[in-house]
Amino acid sequence: MARIETISFDGDDTLWHTQDAFESVEERFRTLLARYLHGEAVSEHLYGIEMRNLRRFGYGAKGFILSLIETAIEVSGSAITAAEIEVILSFLRELLDRPVTLLEGVRETLARLSVEHNLVLLTKGDLFDQELKIARSGLAELFSQVRIVSEKNDLAYSGLLSHCGTPPAQLAMVGNSLRSDILPAIARGIYAIHIPYHVTWKHESAGSTPESSPLYRHAETMAEVPSIIRQIGSAV
Amino acid sequence: MARIETISFDGDDTLWHTQDAFESVEERFRTLLARYLHGEAVSEHLYGIEMRNLRRFGYGAKGFILSLIETAIEVSGSAITAAEIEVILSFLRELLDRPVTLLEGVRETLARLSVEHNLVLLTKGDLFDQELKIARSGLAELFSQVRIVSEKNDLAYSGLLSHCGTPPAQLAMVGNSLRSDILPAIARGIYAIHIPYHVTWKHESAGSTPESSPLYRHAETMAEVPSIIRQIGSAV
Repeated sequence: MARIETISFDGDDTLWHTQDAFESVEERFRTLLARYLHGEAVSEHLYGIEMRNLRRFGYGAKGFILSLIETAIEVSGSAITAAEIEVILSFLRELLDRPVTLLEGVRETLARLSVEHNLVLLTKGDLFDQELKIARSGLAELFSQVRIVSEKNDLAYSGLLSHCGTPPAQLAMVGNSLRSDILPAIARGIYAIHIPYHVTWKHESAGSTPESSPLYRHAETMAEVPSIIRQIGSAV
Repeated sequence: MARIETISFDGDDTLWHTQDAFESVEERFRTLLARYLHGEAVSEHLYGIEMRNLRRFGYGAKGFILSLIETAIEVSGSAITAAEIEVILSFLRELLDRPVTLLEGVRETLARLSVEHNLVLLTKGDLFDQELKIARSGLAELFSQVRIVSEKNDLAYSGLLSHCGTPPAQLAMVGNSLRSDILPAIARGIYAIHIPYHVTWKHESAGSTPESSPLYRHAETMAEVPSIIRQIGSAV
């Protein structure tokens, strides 16, 4: 029987809101640069710089803000002022200091699942920032293990499997990102429960939904996860 | 007998050069701001901002550069230009892209120690940046475990002990920082071998050398470590 023993959860936009704060900053950044370039073109330029910087910076708020500054200088033809760059720095403080707001039903569902399952947090990004968010989330004690990785690739999932000691068929990954949570988990033989967030960073939406995989499940909200987990256990 | 079973190593300025690259950037930053403030005062201002940002940013090159930009805006009374901030951003690319240069004798000594001991890397800082450095160092395969933490505090050392499964008296920590490598290790009952680096970031030199502790050892270079490890094993 493939009863699910361990459930691993993504953090950003699965347990707590993240992307909407980044989008709000980007919106104000576009306004800040409006006299140089129109909003859509600013976002395109920014995305190009973010992708160029990703292999140097990795994910996270600090790298995002550094890319905003670089974009501001380029887009303005070096006309951006120190006062405007100070505004961009204030976006960073806002991103890092904001309280962690859990998605609806997260606390209750995790508390309930933790009674019969081993819960793991598998999150990617800036180590320091993620640790702060986990502490602020108030969820830390529900997890037997917290794994913060720089990229959720095959290596991250093989590390998860070996550290949990759970066979892939008894592990389920829950997350909002096809690219980071769903596709690499399925590739490793892990059940993957996809809960799309209302906004997705372009980079994370890469790839198509693996509807045809027997390991793929879709949920609208976290509250549906316990019944999906039960169905997986009883279906085999 | 307290034969040392596991040896854990700090990375930055213990295995590979780090601080001198940061100092070289700071030197050029002082020159960049010379028309606003003299060098020593720039460094003092920067250190104040770094300490203020540490609880938000953690350690690492990205946070350092963000603190440089903030310092430049403050010190110049917002007169710093976009072109000058672009110079500061180029310092970040320089810091992140530089090759990893090992300290003298590191590769040979670690290869030798790995024959009879379990080697662990315990490094703090930016996850993404540290992973890149470990990969570039060519040392990864010598370590049974790599631990990257946001702060080397008591929690980090208790995590090290529980993951190694080695009793404290059979563990030795090797590092250049009193604050991060030596004092917290000794507090946990771990042997600590201090190899001072030729420059030390002010923040890391906090605390006085625990000369009187029976767990404290001093080495001038990595090449002395094997004989110190042997002495510890035979002294008990």
